[in-house]
Formats: sequence, C-alpha cells, structure tokens
Amino acid sequence: MTDRYILYHHALCPFSRTVRLILREKGLAYALITELPWKPSEALLKHNPLGDLPVLVEPAEHALCIPQAIYEYLNEVKPTPNLLGETLLGRAEIRRLIGLFDTFFYRDVMRPLLDERLVKSLTTGADPDSRRIRIARDNLKKYLTYINWLTERRSYLGGRHLSLADLCIAAHLSVLDYFGEIPWENYTDLKIWYAKIKSRPSFSALLQDRIAGIIPSESYTNLDF
Amino acid sequence: MTDRYILYHHALCPFSRTVRLILREKGLAYALITELPWKPSEALLKHNPLGDLPVLVEPAEHALCIPQAIYEYLNEVKPTPNLLGETLLGRAEIRRLIGLFDTFFYRDVMRPLLDERLVKSLTTGADPDSRRIRIARDNLKKYLTYINWLTERRSYLGGRHLSLADLCIAAHLSVLDYFGEIPWENYTDLKIWYAKIKSRPSFSALLQDRIAGIIPSESYTNLDF
Repeated sequence: MTDRYILYHHALCPFSRTVRLILREKGLAYALITELPWKPSEALLKHNPLGDLPVLVEPAEHALCIPQAIYEYLNEVKPTPNLLGETLLGRAEIRRLIGLFDTFFYRDVMRPLLDERLVKSLTTGADPDSRRIRIARDNLKKYLTYINWLTERRSYLGGRHLSLADLCIAAHLSVLDYFGEIPWENYTDLKIWYAKIKSRPSFSALLQDRIAGIIPSESYTNLDF
Repeated sequence: MTDRYILYHHALCPFSRTVRLILREKGLAYALITELPWKPSEALLKHNPLGDLPVLVEPAEHALCIPQAIYEYLNEVKPTPNLLGETLLGRAEIRRLIGLFDTFFYRDVMRPLLDERLVKSLTTGADPDSRRIRIARDNLKKYLTYINWLTERRSYLGGRHLSLADLCIAAHLSVLDYFGEIPWENYTDLKIWYAKIKSRPSFSALLQDRIAGIIPSESYTNLDF
C-alpha cells in the first residue's frame, strides 16, 4: 500500500492529460508511468485487458479504468475544490461538455489527427492521409467556433467556476496545440479562456512534455501566445 | 411547463433504451418522440445541433444531451432507488462498465451491426458488408465472454444491487437480441442475469417495440428463452 496514485498515461493522450490536471487541481500526489497507446505493457494489460489509457491505480491498488469513471472518482474522493458545480442542471451541462469532447470531438478530430500526425510517424512511418487530415481540420473548425461562442458568454465553460469541463476541453486543445493545429487568432474569446486555464499551476507539467522527434508549436508553451 | 419528461429516441438506439429503463426504474413519467438517427427532425436539432440521440427535455424544458450526462442527472434528480451504488469504488466500477459498453462496445460491435443490419436496409438498401459484420460478431464474442465471467461472480453487474451498469448493458444486448445476434445457449450465467433484468416491469415497454419490416428474433420477447 502506497500513499499516492499511479497513472499509466501517454504525454499526448487527452484523457490522461485531463486526469493529470484533476489530480493537480485536487492536490493529490501521483507518479506517472509512460505507455505507448499502440503497444500496451504487460503491467498495463494486467490492470486493463483492453489496454486503453489512462489507468489510475489508487492507493489501495485498485485499478480504475475509463476516463469519465476516473474523473468522477477523483471529484468524489477529494470533494474540494468541487469540479462538478453546485446545481443539478450545472452538473448535467458539465458532463455534456465532457461527453461532447471525449466522445464526439475525439472521434471527429482528435483520433484522426493523432493517428495521422503522431502514431504513423512513430510506428510504420507511413505517409499521413491528407484527405483524412483535411476532414478532421474542417471538423475542428466547427468545434472551435462552438467553444468560442460559449466562452463569449461564460467565464468558464461550465458556468462561473472552474470545472471538469474546462480541464477536459483544455486538455484536448493542448494536444492539438502541440501540433500547431489551433489557429488561436481566429477565436478571440476562446484564446482568452485558454490563456487563463493554461496559466494555472496545474497546467505547467503538461507544457513541459515533449515527444522525441516532434517539436511543439511556438504557441504551445508560450503563456502570452 | 409540463410535469413530465420528453425523450427524443429511436426504438433500437441503445442509449435511448437505457434512459427509458432508468426513467421507469425511477418511476418518472415521460413521453416518447420517435426520431430516425440518420435524419434528425427540426425539433431535435433545435435542442441538440449535433442531432445525436437521445435528448431528454426535463419539466422546466431544459434539454439534456449526452447519454452519461442524462443517466447521472436522472440518478440525482430522483435519488431512490439509488442506481450508482453506496461506495466510491463501487461507483467507479459501475461507471467503468457503462463506459466500456457506451464507448468501446458501441464502437466495436453495436455501431457496425446497426449500420449493416438496420440503417442500410432502411435507407439506401445497399447490401450489408459481410466482412464488417463478421468482425463485429467476433468482437461481440469477446464482450459476451467477459460479461458472462462477471455474471458468474456477481448477482448484478455492478455488485449486489441493480445499477445503471445492468440497465445500460441489458439495453445494448436487447438491441442485438432483436436481430438474433446473441447465442444465449453459450453463455449460461449471462442468460440467467439477462432473464432477471428482462423480467423487470421497466423492461416490458422495450420488448413491445417493433421496427417496420424487421421481425424480432424468437428470443426477443420470450421471458423463458
């Protein structure tokens, strides 16, 4: 029995990034174990036969799988700060935004861009499929326009306070920003919101992550981008 | 303002089925509006521009989207019976099973089988892709073996009591059972568990659903299958 959490993660896995942000915002100590999503280790498979990331091993050594189950667990195990809001409809809205990004944005934008720009270059070395990239970028525009519209109206995405929705969506955008995929200048309010989340102490470790052979974009670590 | 819920759904959408089961288990009154997943109505798009199902309009007319956000909302708005369990790790396990089915099972099994066996026959009339069906059926076996293993060890999937995990997974299996895709005889404990869930009053309305032109399998409505 240890007194801290162990997170099996990959530096550019958006779900792993969200969990790291929550752990930091909650002030929970944790150690990271790096995995390659396309080649899960024996240790990871023992905890999660599907091999998907992240897996969080809690202090009594129970392994927790599935991103949303981990987010909810962490918000319950350490209730302050409350990252799910004070009202019933507020929580439904925060969970809607999480599902919108973890399911739909992941399918429409993140997965194809990660496959083409990260996985291929680190595995087979095959040429990226430019048509698939173009479709994902077109989809990205729609999501950015929508989130920009929300940030015009709300100081945080789930309402007046920082919530899991901010951490989840900022985690997704930070991965794409590593690859220079976010044209921040077209999305004024989104950029203001992202600068605010990016400046939080919880975010600093993420901005230090590097993947060998892939240099992050200029805006990635710059807090005044 | 009305005193009941309105659910935009499709009879063979597994997420919509889960929400119907929760509403019934909670004793909440609701009306159904039938949608075609491949052709969302103007009314649905007004509530949910993505057009995905289900959408739950609550009595004060706020529209709730994203399956897991709706499940959690319903469990909070009417806390009895509690469908998420009494312990922190128990809730994480229930939410893990929900994510396993709503995300991975949906991607690996449900979506391809629904596309090939339902959507094509009701839209373009194109021939089903037999290779895609074969892969989905191979995946299905792995999930059924796993759930059968769980039902050997637990009276309900999330532990000792009925939970959202039972309703969610039974909803998914019921859709495939409509098409005769579940070889129950190979999965003894799974069959006992499913018979128990299927016999609940909350399940009866689902078993009466019919899609024009597609006759359900013999086991579908039979409580003694």
